[in-house]
Amino acid sequence: MSTFQFHLDATDRDTAARCGRWQTPHGVVETPAFMPVGTSGTVKGLTPDQLREIGSQMVLANTYHLALRPGAEIVAEMGGLHRFMNWDGPILTDSGGFQVFSLARLTKLDDQQVVFRSHIDGSLLELSPEEAIRIQQLLGADCIMCLDEGPPHDVDEAKLRVAVDRTTRWAARCRDAHQRTDQALFGIVQGGTDLRMRERSAEGLLPLDFPGYAVGGLSVGEEPTSMYRTLDGTVPMLPADRPRYLMGVGRPEDLIEAVVRGIDLFDCVMPTRNGRNAMAFTSNGTIRLRNLKHQRDPKPLDEECSCPVCRQFSRAYLRHLFISGEMLGPILLSMHNLAFYHRLLREIRLAIREERVSEFRSVHLARWEPSV
Amino acid sequence: MSTFQFHLDATDRDTAARCGRWQTPHGVVETPAFMPVGTSGTVKGLTPDQLREIGSQMVLANTYHLALRPGAEIVAEMGGLHRFMNWDGPILTDSGGFQVFSLARLTKLDDQQVVFRSHIDGSLLELSPEEAIRIQQLLGADCIMCLDEGPPHDVDEAKLRVAVDRTTRWAARCRDAHQRTDQALFGIVQGGTDLRMRERSAEGLLPLDFPGYAVGGLSVGEEPTSMYRTLDGTVPMLPADRPRYLMGVGRPEDLIEAVVRGIDLFDCVMPTRNGRNAMAFTSNGTIRLRNLKHQRDPKPLDEECSCPVCRQFSRAYLRHLFISGEMLGPILLSMHNLAFYHRLLREIRLAIREERVSEFRSVHLARWEPSV
Repeated sequence: MSTFQFHLDATDRDTAARCGRWQTPHGVVETPAFMPVGTSGTVKGLTPDQLREIGSQMVLANTYHLALRPGAEIVAEMGGLHRFMNWDGPILTDSGGFQVFSLARLTKLDDQQVVFRSHIDGSLLELSPEEAIRIQQLLGADCIMCLDEGPPHDVDEAKLRVAVDRTTRWAARCRDAHQRTDQALFGIVQGGTDLRMRERSAEGLLPLDFPGYAVGGLSVGEEPTSMYRTLDGTVPMLPADRPRYLMGVGRPEDLIEAVVRGIDLFDCVMPTRNGRNAMAFTSNGTIRLRNLKHQRDPKPLDEECSCPVCRQFSRAYLRHLFISGEMLGPILLSMHNLAFYHRLLREIRLAIREERVSEFRSVHLARWEPSV
Repeated sequence: MSTFQFHLDATDRDTAARCGRWQTPHGVVETPAFMPVGTSGTVKGLTPDQLREIGSQMVLANTYHLALRPGAEIVAEMGGLHRFMNWDGPILTDSGGFQVFSLARLTKLDDQQVVFRSHIDGSLLELSPEEAIRIQQLLGADCIMCLDEGPPHDVDEAKLRVAVDRTTRWAARCRDAHQRTDQALFGIVQGGTDLRMRERSAEGLLPLDFPGYAVGGLSVGEEPTSMYRTLDGTVPMLPADRPRYLMGVGRPEDLIEAVVRGIDLFDCVMPTRNGRNAMAFTSNGTIRLRNLKHQRDPKPLDEECSCPVCRQFSRAYLRHLFISGEMLGPILLSMHNLAFYHRLLREIRLAIREERVSEFRSVHLARWEPSV
């Protein structure tokens, strides 16, 4: 476990926020940290050089997509995912489960495995806990995930319990199947917004002694306040000395709310997906670049931002790129939005160290209203 | 004229190739040089930082596209094209004429002007020599072009003569309309592949004493050998002490053939357009990245290339990006192809200085067959 040492540098007095350093085989991640999503082994539109330049520490890739294309064996043959995508920093892969339940057409789900049809060519495929681990071992990320079942947010309690218990049994099988010592395998706590189910899930997973825990099944349609309440109850169930990862979340305000509740790691497609759709995050809230009011605006996206985009380009130019359908628009806005997220997390880390995270929270949440 | 000094460093003994340094208000261009095409004020998919990294010296932008979107007045208001697109090196704009004749729907052409409909929204617009200069002065490129009429390559002699004579009259009006001393205005020799018409065009334009001359109306459907023959006859008509620019050309072999005939400047969409379509130029000819044979190929695109793409990514990864429809594929192949063109020109310049350009030519043409 020494490879994956997690050292807490500072813990807030007023909130559950903490600031730490997580050692991985591909370098240290300063937490709380945001991971850009590189679904198919590429953060859409950005080179690894650009990711490093804007401060990305660790990236996420999706097992489901990579298993379908180009195939985990090919990635392994090409030297593993780090070498394949030329990202020498830490990488996290998910289990593929989330996409199987959301993107693919499910044909059969039982304790043994899930059978589904590829969203690309309709071919019939199977994913079991053992297979999810086998694939993730071939990909070779630093941090990998147990296969879990994440039901819709409005499912009834009986189904939720089935999913929670299956997730626990699958986690045990994942742990047994996992052999690479240079990968940290995380358990995923499920249970929707029902704290009794969250407790049931944590109680099942904690004895398996994972080196880190993820909170799954949030940001799937429930209200933000409902997500925050769930975190209020769930995060304290997780070991304080291990990284806590909130999967697939979220908006800048969600990140702040989750950090003050004790979360260390985040991923979300929002900065890149919204960037591709001409929406920029700024210190004063979001802006839509296609809006006519930016046509003659020589200002940068965000005057408080020192990212390569804000240093070099005006809103007028960025708007022109989107109106003209030029690739550089999505590229530059993805870059800026990720830089915005990384700066936000950097400032949060500093605020935690300087014991002013509550103030940071209120100042920022006030500036951003109304949000996305 | 001192701003635009053109100094010839070396002239080949066996061929008409020459190697020089062209001073512009935004820096020196080492010639022969290739200019990436940044149609709407962006070389598709690449940042200015990336262009500099791969060795771009001067970029081209299209007056037609910029005049339609965002409009020359807006570019001027934003500080001119250099600042708008954040390219602080030299820029060349064309006159817009080529796109009016090829892309727009022509409604009326007479000596006064050309009337056409925008290919974007169908609006009725006019372009006269004076208007082409007015727009290009607003854009503020270092080198700008006279409005010319470039008829199809298979037009009859009578129509060709009309176009040549109109191009001459328009050139005089362009010269009279042009006032910015920080811009070099080039004349464009027309005349198709008919050397008597080329002579007629040159005779009309040389008395206007432009600081540089372009050869237009080539690479529009004629055979390469026909283009080379035309250059054989036309280039010697142009002043040896001024830059010669072959517009819209071309394939790597065309560049070599034109350099040995005395051309100094080139632009072409081929490296970027073909790159976006998964075609890569390499030292051993072109390759199609979508081909299955690259699926497990750990080699770079070109083992003799030291561009950022060849240093960092395998053919297998690049193929994966294209097969998965990822933006990074077009980005990286555009980058490599431009780096390939720049390296080719760098090597040509060296070969000219070292008096081995004929050998360089035969070695390279042999390696590339069969070509695109």
